[in-house]
Amino acid sequence: MTFGRHSDLADRVKRLGTETAFAVSAEAARWREEGHTVYPFHLGDLNLPTPQNIVDATEKAIADGHTGYCPNAGILPLREALAADVSASHGVEYGPQNVAVEPGGKPVIGKFILALMNPGDEVLYPNPGYPIYESQIEFHGGKALPYGYVEGGENFELDFDALERQVTRRTRLLMFNNLQNPTGAESSPQELERVAEFVLRHDLVVLCDEAYWDMRYSGASRSLASLPDMAERCVILYTFSKKFAMTGWRLGAAVGPALPVDVIAKLNVNDESCSNHFIQYGAIEGLTGDQAGPREIVRILRERRDACVGLLNQIPGVRCFTPEATFYLYPNVTGLMERKGFTTYDELRRAALHETGVSFCTRLHFGRALPDEKESYVRFAYSGIDVPRIQEGLGKLKAWAEA
Amino acid sequence: MTFGRHSDLADRVKRLGTETAFAVSAEAARWREEGHTVYPFHLGDLNLPTPQNIVDATEKAIADGHTGYCPNAGILPLREALAADVSASHGVEYGPQNVAVEPGGKPVIGKFILALMNPGDEVLYPNPGYPIYESQIEFHGGKALPYGYVEGGENFELDFDALERQVTRRTRLLMFNNLQNPTGAESSPQELERVAEFVLRHDLVVLCDEAYWDMRYSGASRSLASLPDMAERCVILYTFSKKFAMTGWRLGAAVGPALPVDVIAKLNVNDESCSNHFIQYGAIEGLTGDQAGPREIVRILRERRDACVGLLNQIPGVRCFTPEATFYLYPNVTGLMERKGFTTYDELRRAALHETGVSFCTRLHFGRALPDEKESYVRFAYSGIDVPRIQEGLGKLKAWAEA
Repeated sequence: MTFGRHSDLADRVKRLGTETAFAVSAEAARWREEGHTVYPFHLGDLNLPTPQNIVDATEKAIADGHTGYCPNAGILPLREALAADVSASHGVEYGPQNVAVEPGGKPVIGKFILALMNPGDEVLYPNPGYPIYESQIEFHGGKALPYGYVEGGENFELDFDALERQVTRRTRLLMFNNLQNPTGAESSPQELERVAEFVLRHDLVVLCDEAYWDMRYSGASRSLASLPDMAERCVILYTFSKKFAMTGWRLGAAVGPALPVDVIAKLNVNDESCSNHFIQYGAIEGLTGDQAGPREIVRILRERRDACVGLLNQIPGVRCFTPEATFYLYPNVTGLMERKGFTTYDELRRAALHETGVSFCTRLHFGRALPDEKESYVRFAYSGIDVPRIQEGLGKLKAWAEA
Repeated sequence: MTFGRHSDLADRVKRLGTETAFAVSAEAARWREEGHTVYPFHLGDLNLPTPQNIVDATEKAIADGHTGYCPNAGILPLREALAADVSASHGVEYGPQNVAVEPGGKPVIGKFILALMNPGDEVLYPNPGYPIYESQIEFHGGKALPYGYVEGGENFELDFDALERQVTRRTRLLMFNNLQNPTGAESSPQELERVAEFVLRHDLVVLCDEAYWDMRYSGASRSLASLPDMAERCVILYTFSKKFAMTGWRLGAAVGPALPVDVIAKLNVNDESCSNHFIQYGAIEGLTGDQAGPREIVRILRERRDACVGLLNQIPGVRCFTPEATFYLYPNVTGLMERKGFTTYDELRRAALHETGVSFCTRLHFGRALPDEKESYVRFAYSGIDVPRIQEGLGKLKAWAEA
């Protein structure tokens, strides 16, 4: 049947973005179907099993009959367990009234915007960054103000010049993804203090997207919400997806002051009633039970990171930091582009895929390039590829770069 | 911590509604906790187990490793199975391109509105009806135009006078809940033809909320989408919640022309990435496997309906139809209100709860009363209460009414 009524679509649909990384995934899948070997560094999914104790607790909850609706904000014992977990890791006192359980971490982005942004309001968001921020801001009538990252000594650092240049009196929200996708950037204590000062000076409310909080290989993650006067201005995006290899289960939460969390829970009533009921029991087991599963996930990812970083830095024209968190690398490939004579990201990406099988996303999958960008970057995700295949793929990429 | 920034909430939050039925549920729970017997006729959840073959297929999918992300619109075999199922039941040819899998049926409401309604557009919605229509229309800046139902010979009938009175040139969408919550109304073939004529005459696009499609006790459900020229104007809300007693699993779908379904799938990318992956395999088993489970659910519900209707009609001042679909009854209680001297719905509801333990929702839980309403109605849901308890509770209600 033909709808044939394009004119009937709402105007806001024209402003709706997507994750263009899925197109890279589809292209890699086609290349594989044609009989080629593909080394998948493009997507941020995990090729690791969910810990068995979580599976067992979930299946027990089904057997126990937890198959009907549950409260819109989530079952109380999960909200309590999450509040205790985030309180302990953040040094901020949260209770169950500060937690709204969601079908994934991602729903927190749209609901935060709907709860706090009026049409015409300005929102600062990271670019390069998770493309959904910009899409949701613009879809709901806001003005998206990009800020970026610059190369520091050991990792990427927040571009405070961009933040200060972009912010105006109409700016109300900051999307802040410490432990960042795609750069792997992580704020130092000093940088977090500067962010807090900036937030107070401009009277902002912050979405702290902490999706990669537990994906770390040394040290401890730090949150903007832990700084003085910040908890009351921060809504934390929490997800079970990464720590527990539960991406396809769809469970996460908003953690923050009771008022915006209440609005988010009321949006739950309107948008999906509640998150899956029985999986919430599996999540409680994840938070409070045996931690061998998430430890093993981090151990495996650390090996992959080390293999990836080491090999990428052997490729001529490639320079890569060693982030202590996330499962992403964001190597500078300016030299490689020049060496191979590529002038666009897509030339580089397609040539690498077709000539080596190595598939990755580029800077453009994380936002429109900013006017003053001179260096070129791509993103390698090591969440979905084992060490032997990392070695094989990046070995081929090196030989190709050297040729 | 105190957010203390009420002024920071977006203006649209003031227009966000909720399901006030949850307050009735909370009041009943408190009454039970105080040691009283409660007969729960208030909420539309099922106290029946999900068929075991669906549980088994879901757990097999977990064991098979379907725990990562899946496509935003759902896995292809489920989209194919749903397209085949809805094609067969509707006599309309749908393919997988016409199906977007959602975390429940409810998400289709908000996404339909976001995809098709501009701020200022008018949307017709049933009142009494599912309160989320009005909430989502107004939240996203539309103007909600209520239409009601009138008592016919054997069941409620659409109030076409209200539809004609409300519709204007600015009206673009119609929310249409055939097999209706709360009234149990179901359109005759003639009534559906009148709706189709109305839709064409006013050039509307329709959300066909068919959440109760399979909850029926004789005859066959009919869809507006099956009428000539209607499929291209209808997006069907499909849910697994009722037919398979899967309310807490959260799985449903939008089925309709490819263009709006594509927009809804793009909203999935933005709002929650995808629905739970492994449950989609359970849903395929539900659609294509042994149908003993859903048959047994309907058999049980039919017994409950007959018990409820028979007893309600024995209560003085109560008049109740026998709908052949849904699991709701919407008795006229005007006489009972007069007899007991109640002038407000809440007096009736609270007195019944406290003096008999019978808990139900009233007309006001399904929308603001319209200016010209003279009769009084309450809603009895029999999805969550067994026949012996129906008999006991309604026996007490009868004695109380007669006293």
